[in-house]
Formats: sequence, structure tokens, C-alpha cells
Amino acid sequence: MEKFSRLFGYIEERKRLIDDWLDSFIPPEETPPSTIHKAIRYALFPGGKRIRPILCIAAAEIAGGRAQDVLPAACAIEMIHTYSLIHDDLPCMDDDDFRRGRPTVHKVFGEAIAVLAGDGLLSLAFEALSSVSAYPDPSIARIMTVIQEIAVASGTRGMVGGQVADIEAEGKQTHSLEEVEFIHLNKTAKMIEVSLKAGAILAGAGHREVERLSEYGRKLGLAFQIVDDILGEIGDEKKLGKPVKRDRELNKATYPSVVGIEGSRDRARKLVEEAKEALSIFEEEKCWVLKELADFVLMRER
Amino acid sequence: MEKFSRLFGYIEERKRLIDDWLDSFIPPEETPPSTIHKAIRYALFPGGKRIRPILCIAAAEIAGGRAQDVLPAACAIEMIHTYSLIHDDLPCMDDDDFRRGRPTVHKVFGEAIAVLAGDGLLSLAFEALSSVSAYPDPSIARIMTVIQEIAVASGTRGMVGGQVADIEAEGKQTHSLEEVEFIHLNKTAKMIEVSLKAGAILAGAGHREVERLSEYGRKLGLAFQIVDDILGEIGDEKKLGKPVKRDRELNKATYPSVVGIEGSRDRARKLVEEAKEALSIFEEEKCWVLKELADFVLMRER
Repeated sequence: MEKFSRLFGYIEERKRLIDDWLDSFIPPEETPPSTIHKAIRYALFPGGKRIRPILCIAAAEIAGGRAQDVLPAACAIEMIHTYSLIHDDLPCMDDDDFRRGRPTVHKVFGEAIAVLAGDGLLSLAFEALSSVSAYPDPSIARIMTVIQEIAVASGTRGMVGGQVADIEAEGKQTHSLEEVEFIHLNKTAKMIEVSLKAGAILAGAGHREVERLSEYGRKLGLAFQIVDDILGEIGDEKKLGKPVKRDRELNKATYPSVVGIEGSRDRARKLVEEAKEALSIFEEEKCWVLKELADFVLMRER
Repeated sequence: MEKFSRLFGYIEERKRLIDDWLDSFIPPEETPPSTIHKAIRYALFPGGKRIRPILCIAAAEIAGGRAQDVLPAACAIEMIHTYSLIHDDLPCMDDDDFRRGRPTVHKVFGEAIAVLAGDGLLSLAFEALSSVSAYPDPSIARIMTVIQEIAVASGTRGMVGGQVADIEAEGKQTHSLEEVEFIHLNKTAKMIEVSLKAGAILAGAGHREVERLSEYGRKLGLAFQIVDDILGEIGDEKKLGKPVKRDRELNKATYPSVVGIEGSRDRARKLVEEAKEALSIFEEEKCWVLKELADFVLMRER
């Protein structure tokens, strides 16, 4: 992992900005009713890799913007991701007891509060997005476009739709590649794609740049989910902070279940190459973060 | 109910506009994954009284606007209301089997789809709100303000917070008036208040008009919830389409549980009077709808 040391430095710096912004935006634990704010903070901090908001910031930087310009949107996307994890873990969904090495929200706060913490996070995300004064140099038309894009990507023709297909696939004997790709595209790739798109749009990128960064995001998102499926099958439980072989137990439609581990690795590698190619229009020194991040996605162990 | 015939005519006309807008905006049932769109449409149609979007339209009309100018916002508020009902009915929340005389969403589609239908509706609401081209004469700054207001009113310092307090109160032996008022204000009144505020802002109302319409909404919202509590205690099950005495079974913090039925009626009457007084700055012929609606809230049986 030596070769990624520059990337890790970049990630740490951006992660700090994201965590600070989230901490100042989310109501303090004592805000009534305090249970809901405790549950939301439990889910958000210390949090995971913050990959989506980091991608949002990186896209803005490539387009000539700064992290500060896009933090409300970057953090809104992280809130939406976090709400989706809380709801996915519920007993009526994947029924998972652990996430990132800790008991899931419903194990600590109960199911009702877990449902409401997810609901509350989704509203908070749109509150952050529409907080015009939180953007140092706001273009209200760009913010509106980003709200629309994020609403669509997170909804029934995006993330929620992917989760529905994921749950429905559990009931089936066998899964097709088409089915798995529908799930991956909707459940994971569209929110990763919109992370880059939002960063690019807010930073004032042109149409072609937005398109290329979106393509990178979609391809990276698909690769990311395939690697997730592989780790769910043969990963290290300690590093993952959750049990492996769970997908198989639940009869999930995963990439390895359809094309095997090697076939999945090949597909992820190909997608990462295509993702990097989409960046060919940008100068090399501008897109090193996204290129290294794409390589890193292939090597990640958690 | 003879005296309300003009009001009912008004409501019917606006209801048709709302239903048509919702029907054209919500993805058709066959949009994949179709289950989620079937569940969302099952929850939205035929729907209930549509009181929130009608209030939004009425506020716009008082401020000189038209129903068309605010339909995306009015319908977004109805989507948010509908999502909150789906989640409130879940087994881990109020565990209700019937709503408006029909089995609840989770009874028909299962719990996982019910959670996701609620989630999807919330994203669809913000998609509708941010669909600039859906407003005939859009002021993007006003739309942004409305998105912010609705995000706050629906979140942890609004509707979701009220639902948390409502659920937490169930575990207590006795309830205080303060507790009940916190629940009513947050769970019900803030979304009704924002319905009027959104309509007024989008129609270009001045600061004072927005304030007065918001005050009307807050007072009406509190009265509406008190009447709801009364109906939950002594209403007619057939008219309500759901069982009565359920609040008592769940040991809910309700107005009648703290001040009795007569005390609740007095409070609701007083709030309705105050709501109507807030409209004193408007010409009489402009605000008859809101005044009659306030009177009707006291008399409603479902």
C-alpha cells in the first residue's frame, strides 16, 4: 500500500473537512428529542471511508473548484448513504447486527428509532443541499440542478429501486447477469456517479467535463460494488467489521454468484480501466487522485 | 354540512388538480422495479383528504397566485405526508393494519417494501420540488427557500422529531400537557404550517402575509391534531376507516388523555378562532376558504 501514500494523505485531509462540516451541521445530541440525534450521530461518526463525499470534492477540484465550494452537497450525499445503510440493516431488510465493527443502529436504539434516524437523515441531506448560505460562492441555479440530480439518484429509479431489486432477487433460485447489473447500477453506481456529477456541476464544469466525470463515477461505482461482493464472499471479517458469506446465506444476487470470483475480478479490473480512460480529457496532474482512487478500489480489503 | 357546500366544491376542484399532477409525476406502475411503484401508488391513490396540498394552494391564491404555480410543492408535501403514514403504520412503530379502510402498505407489500416506499416517496418529493420546469413561472430563489423550509419541517426538528417523541411517550406512565404539545407541534403542525408558508412564498407574498399564513397553519395544525386525538377516542370506526381506542391501547400521549374530551374540544375551538384571527390582514372574500376550512376541521368526522 506504499504506492498509495500520497492518496491516503489527500483522503485524510478531505475526510477531516467532511467530518468537521457534518459535525457542525448535524444538530447536537442534546437537541430534543435527543434520542434521534444520538442515533444519527452514532451512525455518522466515526463513519466509513467517506468515499462518496471525497469523490464529490475531487471532481470539484478537477473542475477548478475547492472542497469548501461543495461541502454541503458532499456531506448531503454521505448522509443519504448513511441513511441507506441504517435502513438496509433493518430486520425486515438484510437483518444485519454489525456494521463497521459496531452493533447496527437498530441493535442499539431499536427498530423504530432506526427507521426514523434514516428518515431524518434524508431530510437533513436536503436541508444541507438547500442551505444556500452554506456555500461560500453559491450559484443557486447549479445548486437546484444538483438537488434534482441527487433526488433522482437516491430515489425509486436509483438507490431505492436498486435496493428493491436486491431484496426481490433473494427470493429467486438463480440470478442472471442482467439482474445483478441492474442492482449494482441502481443501488450503488448511481449515487457514486452523482457524487462526481454534483462536485463538477457546483464547481462550474462544462458539459463535456461533467459527462466524463459522471462516466468515471458510474464505472467506478460498478467496480466498487463488484469488489464489495467479492469481499462479502472471501474477505477478512476483522478488516470488514461484519460477517462474510452473509450474501450467500441470504441468497443475494451478487457478481460472484453469477460469474465466480475470477470472472468478477476481471470485470472489476476492466471497469476501473474504463473509468480511468474517461478522464483522458483532463490534464494528468489534475486527475491523479481519481486515477489512484480507482486503482485502490481494486485492492481494498474493507 | 350544508353550510360547507361551497367549500366542498372548492376542495373537489383542487383535489382533482392535485391527483392529476401526482398521477403524471409518479412513475407508472410498470417502471422497474415495478413493486415499488405499485406500493407508492397504492399509498397515494385514492389518498385521503389532501388537506395539506389544498392549504398550500389556498395560501398561494390568497397571495395572488394560482394553483398551477405551486402544484409541485403542494404535491411534494402530500408525498411527504404519505411516506410518514407508511412508516408510522409499520410493525416497529404503531403496528396498524388498516388505513383509510384498506390494509396498510406493509400488510399488502411486506415490511421491506413499505420502508422503501416511504424512502422513495421522500426522494420523489424533493425531485418534484426541484423540478424547475414543472413550475409555470418559476422563481428559483423562492423554490430554494421552500425546499429548505420543507426539509426542516419534515426532519428531526419537525415531523420526524415529533414521531420520535410520540413513540417515546408510549413507554411512560403519565403524560404532561407540555409533552403532548411538543408532539402535536412537531409531528403535525409544522408540516401544515409549511404547506401554507410554501404556497405563500411561491406566490410571492410579502413577509407579513407569509407570517400570518404560517401562524394560521400552525394553529390549524394543532387544532387538527387535537380533533384527530378526539376522533381516535370517540370517533366512528366506519367513517375513520381504522379502529378507535388504538391510542389508548398504545398508551399514546394524546390531548384527551391529559385534559379529557371536553378540555380538548375547548382547546381546539380556541385554536381555530386564533387561526382565523391571524387572517385579519386579508380581505374577507380572499380568505373564506381558509376560514371555512378551519371551522370544518372542528366538525370533521374522519
